[in-house]
Order: sequence, then structure tokens, then C-alpha cells
Amino acid sequence: MTEGPTPDWRDALPWPGEDAHKHARGRLGVVAGKASQTGAARLAARAGLRIGAGVVRILCPPDATAIIASAIEAVMLTPFGSAEALAEAVEGMDAVVIGPAAGVTDATLTHVRALAGTGAALVVDADGLTVFEGWPTDLFDVLDRDDVLTPHEGEFKRLFPGLLDLGREAAARAAAKRAGAVVVLKGPATIIAAPDGRLAVNDNGVRWLATAGTGDVLAGMIGGLMAQRMDSYDAARAAVWMHAEAARGFGPGLIAEDLPDRLPQVLAALYSQDR
Amino acid sequence: MTEGPTPDWRDALPWPGEDAHKHARGRLGVVAGKASQTGAARLAARAGLRIGAGVVRILCPPDATAIIASAIEAVMLTPFGSAEALAEAVEGMDAVVIGPAAGVTDATLTHVRALAGTGAALVVDADGLTVFEGWPTDLFDVLDRDDVLTPHEGEFKRLFPGLLDLGREAAARAAAKRAGAVVVLKGPATIIAAPDGRLAVNDNGVRWLATAGTGDVLAGMIGGLMAQRMDSYDAARAAVWMHAEAARGFGPGLIAEDLPDRLPQVLAALYSQDR
Amino acid sequence: MTEGPTPDWRDALPWPGEDAHKHARGRLGVVAGKASQTGAARLAARAGLRIGAGVVRILCPPDATAIIASAIEAVMLTPFGSAEALAEAVEGMDAVVIGPAAGVTDATLTHVRALAGTGAALVVDADGLTVFEGWPTDLFDVLDRDDVLTPHEGEFKRLFPGLLDLGREAAARAAAKRAGAVVVLKGPATIIAAPDGRLAVNDNGVRWLATAGTGDVLAGMIGGLMAQRMDSYDAARAAVWMHAEAARGFGPGLIAEDLPDRLPQVLAALYSQDR
Amino acid sequence: MTEGPTPDWRDALPWPGEDAHKHARGRLGVVAGKASQTGAARLAARAGLRIGAGVVRILCPPDATAIIASAIEAVMLTPFGSAEALAEAVEGMDAVVIGPAAGVTDATLTHVRALAGTGAALVVDADGLTVFEGWPTDLFDVLDRDDVLTPHEGEFKRLFPGLLDLGREAAARAAAKRAGAVVVLKGPATIIAAPDGRLAVNDNGVRWLATAGTGDVLAGMIGGLMAQRMDSYDAARAAVWMHAEAARGFGPGLIAEDLPDRLPQVLAALYSQDR
Repeated sequence: MTEGPTPDWRDALPWPGEDAHKHARGRLGVVAGKASQTGAARLAARAGLRIGAGVVRILCPPDATAIIASAIEAVMLTPFGSAEALAEAVEGMDAVVIGPAAGVTDATLTHVRALAGTGAALVVDADGLTVFEGWPTDLFDVLDRDDVLTPHEGEFKRLFPGLLDLGREAAARAAAKRAGAVVVLKGPATIIAAPDGRLAVNDNGVRWLATAGTGDVLAGMIGGLMAQRMDSYDAARAAVWMHAEAARGFGPGLIAEDLPDRLPQVLAALYSQDR
Repeated sequence: MTEGPTPDWRDALPWPGEDAHKHARGRLGVVAGKASQTGAARLAARAGLRIGAGVVRILCPPDATAIIASAIEAVMLTPFGSAEALAEAVEGMDAVVIGPAAGVTDATLTHVRALAGTGAALVVDADGLTVFEGWPTDLFDVLDRDDVLTPHEGEFKRLFPGLLDLGREAAARAAAKRAGAVVVLKGPATIIAAPDGRLAVNDNGVRWLATAGTGDVLAGMIGGLMAQRMDSYDAARAAVWMHAEAARGFGPGLIAEDLPDRLPQVLAALYSQDR
Repeated sequence: MTEGPTPDWRDALPWPGEDAHKHARGRLGVVAGKASQTGAARLAARAGLRIGAGVVRILCPPDATAIIASAIEAVMLTPFGSAEALAEAVEGMDAVVIGPAAGVTDATLTHVRALAGTGAALVVDADGLTVFEGWPTDLFDVLDRDDVLTPHEGEFKRLFPGLLDLGREAAARAAAKRAGAVVVLKGPATIIAAPDGRLAVNDNGVRWLATAGTGDVLAGMIGGLMAQRMDSYDAARAAVWMHAEAARGFGPGLIAEDLPDRLPQVLAALYSQDR
Repeated sequence: MTEGPTPDWRDALPWPGEDAHKHARGRLGVVAGKASQTGAARLAARAGLRIGAGVVRILCPPDATAIIASAIEAVMLTPFGSAEALAEAVEGMDAVVIGPAAGVTDATLTHVRALAGTGAALVVDADGLTVFEGWPTDLFDVLDRDDVLTPHEGEFKRLFPGLLDLGREAAARAAAKRAGAVVVLKGPATIIAAPDGRLAVNDNGVRWLATAGTGDVLAGMIGGLMAQRMDSYDAARAAVWMHAEAARGFGPGLIAEDLPDRLPQVLAALYSQDR
């Protein structure tokens, strides 16, 4: 299915009710990597907050605390020193993003596993995927059906070697089944596939998104919608579409930092169509 | 009373005179919490400055100094190492906000008490309220009639168990009497109640405010008006209204960081109506 | 003389020539105070850069280095550990601002004296003035005719006790003579007086300037024009006028951080009138 | 040749294709100097990202890590402790900028040499040029034909003593031959000369560029286009023109920090002309 002009996920967008409060609107966690690489987590967190998660918290290694703390205001911060502490810190969270600049390290592997044991829905991106190269079933075994993987083609090949030979759509569909989770295969025409066989091809992709950090923003957007309890497959479709729409409105010269602050405009257009 | 289109607090807004100078325009303090959580205080401080307090100073634990210092320009900063030092640091201040990300700790409890002994009017918010759960009279005993409490429903229940059964308006009225201070019961229709029986229901609330940090901004706005010696009840009513008005103008995608910089527009509209 | 609509300093504004380069456009230094209070120096530096100084450098105590370094881009930074090192660091600079959040300490006193011995024209503001309370001739003795003092009334009284009894204009005139430097007596109608008897009353003052940090911005603007070798008396008049004009365009809700980035608009209007 | 209204480099601009991804769009490195002076590298990096390099990474001395890390988001960061580590860190990069605030030190000299031995095309600017004063052939010997030198007149004289007596155009042409690299002789009419004899005079220079940091932005822009595999001579011509165009659109009051965020507008105009 190619998204038409009024994709059905619009009806599923989680607009806050008149009596909304921040916790009811959803709690999102974003796991940061090492101290020199925290921008990715900050981009994801800001995107998650902009798209409507009521509370967004970055979870960081202790030595990254001061660096992140001076760069955030509405986003919150909790340092953690171990996988157990991480799992504890996400208690009560609705969704967690892990992967952006996480590092391809044993720690990242341990963190993904620890998060899978919590009640939070996961968005696993970037290094959080690459770290399972060679033993992807270790990842698939701990995923739930409402978790989301967001590989670009390179990362996809590491987790699903050979599968792309089927063509992108079939590959994404097979991957979602194999992983038992939603798979977002990023590219010029991003494919979103659910483990129950649902599949969508996003058709509003724009070339300006080919710049560092846009994947972090997308992961945060998906997580932000999931934190608001939108169905993961719908959340992924909606986020992919809005992400591209935000970029299209900007045009050449776009950098990832522009995207979160373009979301209000994209959301406003969708909101007014809904009324 | 529900606020009509031209609420009477408009006449009480503290516009600076032609011969104003920053100290005469009012001095506001904002107490920050631990180093990893200083964004809340920065949001409150910026809101207080935007709404017209002439001098705004964040008071922080020593280890938060560097983190805050690089993130502020016009807002000032004083580290303090004890409750006594805090009380000393607020000397000459007209109003102080305590609570946003303060931490539910003995230190916060001690700090609230120390501040209550100074000449500054207090806005007690968030953790500054929660820390008195179980012994609320310890708080009420030290409050003055021009102090303001800004609980959301959860915090209200901690300080006034059972009172909400009366309904929100009656509960707020009773709470203000019991606390001997202005109570701002936040929610879709925020109630503002004074210990002398005055009560207002704000009717311009917007759903977009359900996002982390908006409460910090509101506390800073109330404190900023009180620092300009506006009557505390009027200050609370005016701040609640302007806070919502700033959010309404923004719409979906709002995050708390947007609010302080929307205030000039809200203030300009009120100012031109006044001329 | 009250400034008319086309004050004569407009012809003296230092627009860069076609063959300008940054060093030829003037070098400004701004002395920062202690680590927790560097925002004032950053405001002054940004204002100096915006108003056209080609190179602006903050001079800071070593422990403030990291705090300032992460908050600047085009402004440069040199830490200094002693008054001698400070004097050395300003070599080749055209003008230096000292005073904003400098601290009322022996160090500030020593720094002002050290700077007076260099070839740079000085703008002495705030703590740089207050520190000479009780021994103002120690300051006056080291000033040159192209140095500028920028006291508000409180600071003026500390340096020139009793003089305000003459009225503001006569007091400023007498003060400029006594100090042997240009005196900018700030207030609703700011007076600018030169030691040679020239005097101007600025008439576009706006109430919105009564907020923390606007004085730091003004000091940076005056210094920025002086660095471009504008006559100090003209620089002070022009800066005072543009400072107020930038504030007027903003209106209620103004904070000092808004001012430097409003200067391009003010400058563009003046520039187009000049063509 | 003086650039006419439709310079031929427009056809050579590296617009991303529909199937672009960040790595394919080009990888740029920017070498930072000491901890107190990292703004220059951040300006260059942001400019490189804005002009379309898909991945931009700052390479910094270890003690500058925390300072830079809190000030970047989409730009990435790698600390390096030696010239070998620097060369290793740039592996796979398409272009590297060195010089802005690098310091006139042995380390800078060693770093330039180490970079010359990698596969990345170089932009050598500012201190990266000055450090070779007295032994310029040490630099020329390691340059490739697609490397770019960006001296202003002062730096040009240090590398090519006496050559300016030939006049600026002839001097630039001779310098490019002698250096075996593209030479960008900055000034009111910037000259771009290639070692194969191509030469262009940029004619849209604006006086507002005479402010600190604009050279850093230009170096980043040239590097950003080169990272996208634009011919170095074309990249230099295009960057010089767009740099001035961005400044012209801003007018008086421009500071270097304004330039990168003006690029989208300049790029959009060029892009629409191309369709």
C-alpha cells in the first residue's frame, strides 16, 4: 500500500484531550551514548517532546551528565551506572529509544536486553541494531510485537543478511516477521512493515533528509508517538511521513536540528484537517 | 467567578513607569535543584524575567554552578551551600520560587522553611509541595497570606488529603483558608483561591500545556509578577491566563521552552488595550 | 542639546569601507568577572560585535574559561591570571569594556588601573565604577579624555557624592570635567557629557530597558563604536540612542538578550538614511 | 574572468539525488584548536553541514571535548591525542578543514602534514597557513592539486613573500602554481586560482563580511562542497559567491554566526534556478 493523501493513521494521532496532563500524555526515555556523542540523544529527545510525549527523559552515562544538563531545559535527565540502574530508571515509561550514538559496544548490547525486560515499548535504532550483527536472534528473542526497529539499508543487511535480495518490500515484510517487531526500512521510499503482515511504503520522502542526525530525530518521533500509546505500526508510518513533510517545508540547506522545531507546523496542518 | 474577556487584574498589571530601573521593577529568586535537573529553574527564571521582574537570580547548589552559568546571560546566579546561605542570598528579593526540580529531600524542606523566614513572598511548587506530604501544617505554619502554592491535583491531594471530594472549587477555597496562602489548583480549568475567600476559575486553558516544564514556567510567571509587587492573588490569576494565552497562540507541538519567548506578544496585546 | 530626529552623530557612524577587513574595523576587549557571572560579559561582547567591532575578545579569569568557551562562537576568548597578563592581552586592542559583573573587589580595581596604562580606550561600567567609591580620584587620575564612564544614578553618587544636587545635566557636565572623561549618566533621560563641555540629553529612552543586563549591552555598544575609532562622545550618544531604539521596537517583555540581535535592524535603518 | 550573473559552477553544484544518504553526500572533518578557542571550528562545521556535507565531524584535542560536546547536536565529535590519531580519525573522510583557531604551534604544523598523507582533500586556512611562514615549501610539498589554501592578504604574504607586487590576480595565479593547489586570495574582490591556470575574480563581495569568524565559515563552506566531490576550484568559487550572497541578504550588523543559517535561502534560490 502506498500512502495516499489522507492516510488512515491521521485518525489515530494522539491529540491530547481537554483534561490532558503531562504524565497521561506519555513518558518517553532516550538512552544517550558516551559524553562526546550526546547530540544524537538530544535530537531524539527534542523530537519526542515536540511530537507530543508529555515527559521526555534522557538516560545517560554518569560522565555525560554535565554536558547534557547544560543543553536541555524541558527535557529531563537521569544518569545511570549499570544496566540494572537503566532498567530501574525507565520504570513507568511508555517507550524508550536506544541506539542513536549509543556505541557498538557490549554495554549497548546489555542495555538493549535490559530495556527489553521492562514494560516500555522500544525503538531500536543505529548502534542498537549494529551491535547485534552476527547474533540477530539475540535481539529478536527479546523483542515484543510493539517494538520498532529502524534500520537503514546497511544496518538492515547486518541484521537480516541476504534478505534484501527479495526486494525492499518483501525484505521488510520478512524481516518484521522474523524479528517479531515493526521494521522501518529507511531509504528514499521508506518501508514500514508489521509482524502481522501490514506494510506501507512512504511516498513523500525528500532528498534533503540525507544529512547526519535525521535518523535520530525520526527515532525520537516514533518513540514520542508510541509513548502516547499510538499503535507502533501507525506511529512509525505517521512519524516517517511527518519527518519528510517537515524536511520538504525547509528545502535545501536542511540540517537535522531544524526538524524538531518544524514539527509544530506539520502538526498544526494535520490537526486542523482533523477538526 | 469565571474570568470574562476583560478580567479586572488587567488594571493591576505592573507596567514600568517612565522612570523605572531594574531594581525598582522587582527582584525575583528561583531556587534550583541538583546539577542534572537545572532546566526547570532556568525555565522559571526566564519566564520571570520576560514577565517583567527587573532582576532575576537563580540560587543553586555549588555543583550546579558551571552547568547553569554557561546557559544564562541576563539571568544571574548565586551558589549557596546551606539553608542559612540561601536565606542570606535572597535578602532584598521581593519574591522567590522554590520547587521546580528541587528534589523531594530534607534539603528542600529546610530550604522552604528558611525562605519563609525572609521578607520575600514565596511561590511553592512541585517538589516544594510534595516534600510536605504527611506534615502539611509544617508548611502552612510558616506561610504568609501573600505566598502562593501551585499544586496540580496529585500534589494537592498530598497536602490536602480528602479535600477534593468537595469538588475542585470548594476544595481550593478550603485549601487556601487552611494554608493561609493563595492556592492555584492547576488543571484544565485552573482554580485560584485566596485565603480571604476570593476565588477565580480560569477559562482559557488549553490542552497543549500538558507537556513537561509548563508548570515551571507558570511558577516563574507568578513569581515575576509578585516581584513587581502585584497582589499575589491577582498575580496568580494574571499569570495563569497569560500562560494559557501564550500556549494557545502556539498550538500543537508546543513545548515549555516556547512559552517564555511568547510572553512579549501576550504582554503587548494587554499593554495596548490598556492605553 | 536634545537629540533631534537627525542627530549629527549619524554622519560619524563608522560604516566599513569596501576594502574593510576585521582588524581594520576595530578590536574590542571585554573583561569578564567570576565564573558564575559571565553572562554580563557575553552580552557586552555580542553587542560590541553586532555594532561593528571587527574582532571582539572576552578576557576572563582562568576558572571561567570552560563556561564562556562553550557559549561563544565568533567572539574570542583569552584567560588571564594577573593584571599584567590582562594588560598584555589587550595589546593592540582599540577599546576595552570593564565593569559588567566584574565584582567589587581589589582585583577589579587593579584591573582598571592596568588597563588604563594600555593604549586602549576604556568603557568603565558597573562594578568598575563602584570599586572606586571612597577614592574616586584614583580612577580619575588614570583616565584619558577618550575614556567613558557609564554610571546609573546610584553609581554616579558613589563617584561624585553631592554632585546630583546640581541637577542631572549640570552634574554630568561637572562630573565629566572632574573625571577628565566622557560621562554617561544613565536614566530615563540619559545625559552624555564630555570633558570639553559638550553635552547631550537622549530623548528616546524607553521604560522597557529597566531589566537586568541592558547596561552591559550598552557598555558593549559604546565600546564597539569606540573600537571603530568613533569619537567617544559621539560613540556614547549614538549607542545610547540605538540601544533605546532597539528596545522600542521590541516593546513589553523585552529582556537584555533581545537587544544585540535587534541592532542589525536599527543599523540598517540608519545606513539606508545615509545613502 | 569575472563571475557573471550565471556562473558556470552552478551546474556543478552537488544537489543530492533522490536516493541520497548521508555518507554518500560526503564526509567533512574540521580540526579544532585549543579548548578556549573552539568557536571557529564550530562555525566551520556548521557551515559545512548547511552547505550539504552529509556527515560533519569536529576533531579536537581531548581537553576541548566537553566544551564542544555540549554545543553541538548534528555535528559529531572525535577527540584525538596525536597526529597519528588524527590521521586515523579522518579515514574515510572526503575533505578536512584545518586552520581556524588551530594555533600557530608545532602541533598545527604536524597536523597539517599528517592530514596531507590521508586521502582527504584539504582546506588549509588561517593558522594552518601562518604556521608555515619561513618554510612554505614544507607545505607545498605535501599538497595535492585538489587541496585549497584560503589566505587573506596578510597570510598570503607570509607564504608567498613579494608575490603581491605582481598585482592580486597575477599573484594568486603564480601562488597556485607554486603551491600546486587552489589558492583563494581573500579580500574585497576575492581571487580564486587553480594550479592549472584557471582564475576567477569574485565580484559580489560585501563590506559586512569584515567581522571575526567569517573566514572560518568560508573554509567550512568550501570544505563542505569538496566533501560532496565538487571540483575544488569550482567549490571555492561557489562558496565564495554564496558566502557573500548570504552576507548581502543580511546587511549591517552581520556577525559570522548569522551566515550558516542564511545558507538555506541562498541554496534555495540557486536550486530553483536549476530546475
